[in-house]
Amino acid sequence: MTSSLMPATELEALVGQAIEASDTSKANAASVARALVQAEIDGQGGHGLSRVATYSAQARSGKVNGRAVPVLKQTRPGAIMIDVKGGFAYPAFDLAIAELPKLAAANGIAAAGFFHSHHAGVVGLHVERLAEAGLVALAFSNTPHAMASWGGKRSIFGTNPIGFAAPQRGEPPIVVDLALSHVARGKIMTAAQKGQPIPEGWAVDENGKPTTDAKAALKGTLIPLGGAKGSALALMVEVLAVALTGANFGAEAASFLDAEGPSPGVGQMLIVIDPGAFAGRDVFLERIGALAGMIGDDAGARLPGSRRLALRAAAKHDGVSIDDAMLGKIRAIAVG
Amino acid sequence: MTSSLMPATELEALVGQAIEASDTSKANAASVARALVQAEIDGQGGHGLSRVATYSAQARSGKVNGRAVPVLKQTRPGAIMIDVKGGFAYPAFDLAIAELPKLAAANGIAAAGFFHSHHAGVVGLHVERLAEAGLVALAFSNTPHAMASWGGKRSIFGTNPIGFAAPQRGEPPIVVDLALSHVARGKIMTAAQKGQPIPEGWAVDENGKPTTDAKAALKGTLIPLGGAKGSALALMVEVLAVALTGANFGAEAASFLDAEGPSPGVGQMLIVIDPGAFAGRDVFLERIGALAGMIGDDAGARLPGSRRLALRAAAKHDGVSIDDAMLGKIRAIAVG
Repeated sequence: MTSSLMPATELEALVGQAIEASDTSKANAASVARALVQAEIDGQGGHGLSRVATYSAQARSGKVNGRAVPVLKQTRPGAIMIDVKGGFAYPAFDLAIAELPKLAAANGIAAAGFFHSHHAGVVGLHVERLAEAGLVALAFSNTPHAMASWGGKRSIFGTNPIGFAAPQRGEPPIVVDLALSHVARGKIMTAAQKGQPIPEGWAVDENGKPTTDAKAALKGTLIPLGGAKGSALALMVEVLAVALTGANFGAEAASFLDAEGPSPGVGQMLIVIDPGAFAGRDVFLERIGALAGMIGDDAGARLPGSRRLALRAAAKHDGVSIDDAMLGKIRAIAVG
Repeated sequence: MTSSLMPATELEALVGQAIEASDTSKANAASVARALVQAEIDGQGGHGLSRVATYSAQARSGKVNGRAVPVLKQTRPGAIMIDVKGGFAYPAFDLAIAELPKLAAANGIAAAGFFHSHHAGVVGLHVERLAEAGLVALAFSNTPHAMASWGGKRSIFGTNPIGFAAPQRGEPPIVVDLALSHVARGKIMTAAQKGQPIPEGWAVDENGKPTTDAKAALKGTLIPLGGAKGSALALMVEVLAVALTGANFGAEAASFLDAEGPSPGVGQMLIVIDPGAFAGRDVFLERIGALAGMIGDDAGARLPGSRRLALRAAAKHDGVSIDDAMLGKIRAIAVG
């Protein structure tokens, strides 16, 4: 397997062309390309370039509406609903991220609920943008079912990522981003695409038996983070992202990974808090600095999200590493 | 070890007398007694009657101010700050739970930050009360340090419970309540008090070695839920409950379990969402019903928090089971 190094801007333009060539508006394609390339740079390949082909197929089949324009409706001073209209989630996140800071500033806290939505990608990227605007942000997304409810047999919950970000003084935001399975489904997908096995403890097969076969694992269910507790957190995310927004539960949502069936129609919830409304911005930044200092002084420990900073610096310096077979596929999609 | 059965109201009155006899106001003692007895009934003994003696000692030594009156300040239309004044946390929660529903109704979402605070007890009980008022609620509390930051050696984070509750139509609320350690510290405390060993995988000793000795575990650190992910969630709770409120981090907070040192001064964050402000109350309740139905139809699975309902029914019918030695201790405190 050979790979090439490509400047991020060039790669983003190419991915944008590929998505735009797949019955998608130029603006939506640019938003999708920005998100996928950043995920790839940040070492989240499962939400990066590996998605170009499946997104393209879904846009062509109509499973995702590449020309959808998300519609924002303010329902209360601190609440907005975003109808993603069966389109890509990224343009809807762009809309919410532009709107929420002023609502959070006015009310202290504000939230956006997304419905008729699609794959949220790396949720840490969305909350990071809000933290760059000085806000604390939480994101919850459901995903098509991949985990059983603890003790049960049926695949009910998605891996349901939680994203969290907080600003620091003079440093990039702290970013937490985690799926509620023991590992992210994207990692198993990547292993399956590469024909590699997975470690034990990641998943069970469709009969509920532990497996190291990535393809069998994709047909079975993932093991939740910490067992019953991870299952309870997954339910919490389904309530926040779906019950509140009227979206489809993980158990009801068609796959993000093929072009078959109806729009997944999943949901998201984005909560934004203005530190100025609680103990105040100065106290907040002092406290964050103290916490970061304690962690930084502890050999071996590191702030969540710090790995992405080194990866970004490397990508900026050297370009983004991309597998040549994948690059060929993306180029083929781009020329239509 | 013998035990007795006592009606909940009688037990609550006795615990109230014991706390009131410990330099605490009648109103605060009643709030504390209600919370501890409910925790005991709900099978959360680590946050129940085992706390009477330590609370009493702390109120007598001044580590907690039993006569403190929490002060609420509204800072924005959707934000309040509560200065717990070094008192018990329960009266402060009572205050927030009375105030937040109208803020959430007006703004769609609202939050209360607590500082100069103390042990939040079973956080699920606080969010459950908000769900009984038709709201979705999230609670985050930090606790004195008990876990290392993942990869590090120093005990930095508390076990930092997350509580979540959502109303159902015609059924008690769904309640999620979990500490971010693999097990709650209270379980190890109970084992240590009873001189019992703990299973492997719960904790490491003060040298970072796995241990089954409950007392050694209390000197070491707890293993976080799912390793790095649980550690990241613990950091998230420290930011929400502490950095935003100006409280003490887990690493800075004196123990909840002895009468030595200054007030712990931990923090809490309580977020309340009005389902009416998003997809609407009817859609929300239909969606919750669909999710509960899927879980209920799956043999072996159950809704988080459902165990408490059976325990409450048993306590109502039979009385609350209480160890006679503990009952004797509480009676001795009550008579001063």
